[in-house]
Amino acid sequence: VLSGGQAPGGHNVIAGLFDGLLQFDPCSELHGFLGGPRGLIEGKERPLDAGAIAPYRHMGGFDLLGSGRDKIESVEQLAACRATCERLRLDGLVVIGGDDSNTNAATLAEHFRERGLSTAVVGVPKTIDGDLKSDEIEASFGFDTATKVYAELIGNLCRDARSARKYWHFVRLMGRSASHVTLECALQTQPNVALIGEEVERHGRTLAEIIDDVAQAVRRRAAAGTSYGVVLVPEGLIEFVPEMRGLIDELNRLFATAAAEFDRLATADDRERFVRSRLSPPVGRAFAELPERIRQQLLLDRDAHGNVLVSQIDTELLLIDGVRRRVAAWQKSGEFHGKLGTLGHFFGYEGRCAQPTNFDADYTYALGRVASRLVAAGHTGYMASLRGLVDSPRSWRAQGVPLTSLMRLEQRHGRQTPVVAKALVCLDGAPFRHLAAERERWAIEDAYVYPGAIQYFGPPEVCNAPTRTLALESAEREG
Amino acid sequence: VLSGGQAPGGHNVIAGLFDGLLQFDPCSELHGFLGGPRGLIEGKERPLDAGAIAPYRHMGGFDLLGSGRDKIESVEQLAACRATCERLRLDGLVVIGGDDSNTNAATLAEHFRERGLSTAVVGVPKTIDGDLKSDEIEASFGFDTATKVYAELIGNLCRDARSARKYWHFVRLMGRSASHVTLECALQTQPNVALIGEEVERHGRTLAEIIDDVAQAVRRRAAAGTSYGVVLVPEGLIEFVPEMRGLIDELNRLFATAAAEFDRLATADDRERFVRSRLSPPVGRAFAELPERIRQQLLLDRDAHGNVLVSQIDTELLLIDGVRRRVAAWQKSGEFHGKLGTLGHFFGYEGRCAQPTNFDADYTYALGRVASRLVAAGHTGYMASLRGLVDSPRSWRAQGVPLTSLMRLEQRHGRQTPVVAKALVCLDGAPFRHLAAERERWAIEDAYVYPGAIQYFGPPEVCNAPTRTLALESAEREG
Repeated sequence: VLSGGQAPGGHNVIAGLFDGLLQFDPCSELHGFLGGPRGLIEGKERPLDAGAIAPYRHMGGFDLLGSGRDKIESVEQLAACRATCERLRLDGLVVIGGDDSNTNAATLAEHFRERGLSTAVVGVPKTIDGDLKSDEIEASFGFDTATKVYAELIGNLCRDARSARKYWHFVRLMGRSASHVTLECALQTQPNVALIGEEVERHGRTLAEIIDDVAQAVRRRAAAGTSYGVVLVPEGLIEFVPEMRGLIDELNRLFATAAAEFDRLATADDRERFVRSRLSPPVGRAFAELPERIRQQLLLDRDAHGNVLVSQIDTELLLIDGVRRRVAAWQKSGEFHGKLGTLGHFFGYEGRCAQPTNFDADYTYALGRVASRLVAAGHTGYMASLRGLVDSPRSWRAQGVPLTSLMRLEQRHGRQTPVVAKALVCLDGAPFRHLAAERERWAIEDAYVYPGAIQYFGPPEVCNAPTRTLALESAEREG
Repeated sequence: VLSGGQAPGGHNVIAGLFDGLLQFDPCSELHGFLGGPRGLIEGKERPLDAGAIAPYRHMGGFDLLGSGRDKIESVEQLAACRATCERLRLDGLVVIGGDDSNTNAATLAEHFRERGLSTAVVGVPKTIDGDLKSDEIEASFGFDTATKVYAELIGNLCRDARSARKYWHFVRLMGRSASHVTLECALQTQPNVALIGEEVERHGRTLAEIIDDVAQAVRRRAAAGTSYGVVLVPEGLIEFVPEMRGLIDELNRLFATAAAEFDRLATADDRERFVRSRLSPPVGRAFAELPERIRQQLLLDRDAHGNVLVSQIDTELLLIDGVRRRVAAWQKSGEFHGKLGTLGHFFGYEGRCAQPTNFDADYTYALGRVASRLVAAGHTGYMASLRGLVDSPRSWRAQGVPLTSLMRLEQRHGRQTPVVAKALVCLDGAPFRHLAAERERWAIEDAYVYPGAIQYFGPPEVCNAPTRTLALESAEREG
């Protein structure tokens, strides 16, 4: 079952799994569940043979089966999954997904074990966000490809900035809970500014302080005669900013109780007045200071659970607006000469369905093979893993990692629940330390690197290089 | 001199020119003007030797020299250019640019000839928009690379649409005056809908009709159980729509006379009232029907000449808004079941500074060599050209094309002026005919093609394929 957002290489996990199972026993059968966990719950599946898989080998996307974001939590859902596995007499169930999906996998493994069902549940670490990793899981698949697609585009924008000499490009990058994608793209392209959500949270920085920092970078470059630059912004930034986190929490609570009343209001002005009269004074002030467009996005877009749709908020435009206001004030007071041109970008969907890099193609195929071995050996509740990923695939070391070793207790629905934990950017880790050591220089100089398009056929150092994150973390681990 | 917007391969023109000049005479000197035509006018230049050029060979962007959009029109500007060429004792002046820049080149060639200056002026056809071509100029450089970058990303979105099965992606593409980029990307990726500005204009289609067409495509797919798709929108679409063209014209005239009064208005509401009271009734109605954000963009952003900044208008959001309204009405009347998820994208800056494809790298280097031969032979007022571009570079045929053969009279500043004409999409040409023949099928089926990242090192059919536009036009030319 493919679960959650797409990541390049998902199809190769299936291919590796299929080949591994047939090698183990030529009479093996592989079934694919349709539309993610829902397919498992509802028993919607299709048999996968060599002909069905062949056109999808090395291809991006999850379109062979589709995906979905359903969680498997309730007693009824667990029973439905069990019934599906019993009906199909499955020796194994392979869940290809991120933290939520692997929490599903752990829950299912536990449930099946309790009920004496012999279906071995195996997880495969997938997410372009890069936040599913541990000492035993060096990387989730898809991160390599997605960051290289984004880095290609950011490199092009750096080149554009330096050529046109009149734009500051503000680039928001997918990755809501953790800033690994932004950090990796920064290490690959060396932009003038890269904001890291985890650092913002550690230092409790306000939105005004963040905007000040960026505006100061703009001013320092302008003073040196440079009226262009590139700023990277993680999609989830505002959730790391205390007052914005407070605003989102208050809005979610408000919508939970007063959505019907709110939705009856006819005009945008009415809705704003309604909300402002119900927010606490400091949060109300933070709300009032936001640009109109962001205020509207906070009020108009809600997800299926009625919560503010944070991923749809144009954080890059929020920063652009703030920086422009500060620069306008400096222009008035004579502290800033010249113009400020700004352009906003969002890179997300373009990368998560890209064709996998050689690294991700190899890694996912190998993960599929490892998963087939874990299933064949009847190991349940394990995640497929490969170690030594910076080395050649020939020397990768296969292993199974107990899902429980990745879990910790979190407050969910009012009670302590074991979940696979998200791995946030470690501010003491080598990748962030590298950024912290270099960023002063990158802010002033044009230290841009232009990685170009992902290559498949050329020199290994061009085609097979791991991410900077993986290389730095591996070097650190080796000591 | 590099002139206008960046296009991949500009640096290779300089490299080819340099190598060609040195082959002709090892004592040749090459100077590069800084910041586009302004560098020529102000005499700001730098000598270019092998060491200066080496790091820029095969690299994207125009950052070796920078670029600019100044026109060379006035008597003073012409005299200043002449003085620069005389001071540097230039045998030749190579203008790398699009239609405006080559109009500059033609004007300079004529002016130099009249004044007896022996500097030969040679143009090189540059523009990612693809609208500088003729029977003698098969393609402008940069079009190949830019469209392949966009097609990579569009292909990824098609894969994403088909995997997530819940989003319609609306993609606006750079290319304001002509829809070649959108047409080429459509031929490469086979999306569900591709709008072509020239067709909209030919049939005098209103915005409402265009939105209806797209909404009908959404409805037909929804009726077949498919709640996703991809729509390509040329950046310049709204300028081809009669009532929007009328609106933009009236706004430009209004700003020309009443900008000071308008800019003193404090609130968005005041500005809207001011404008609406001054627009003609039908244009005022068209304005009132636009979404708020688009109305604001029309009123807030103006270019250096005080005109509406059409390139900053989020046309994809305009269409999304219209389609959502129609679908909402159908949902109410029970004619549409299910949901509509929409996402907007704009691809432009990412592509114009990309590293050139093998085709553009070869083409631009060869154009530089041709320009060096034209200069060495003292031919002035010519554009460097290569024929037979679909064949291997070994069999390309070099030639010079008189700039005057590309020119026609247009109304500029109130008088008939000879300018290099933009080549719009020909609705009788093979590329558009191919789209027209296939698009019914593409609208319903998932006929998506996923071109993937630009490759440099692999099989020639992957790495060196020309654009579909060039291939179809060449096949048609050969009969």
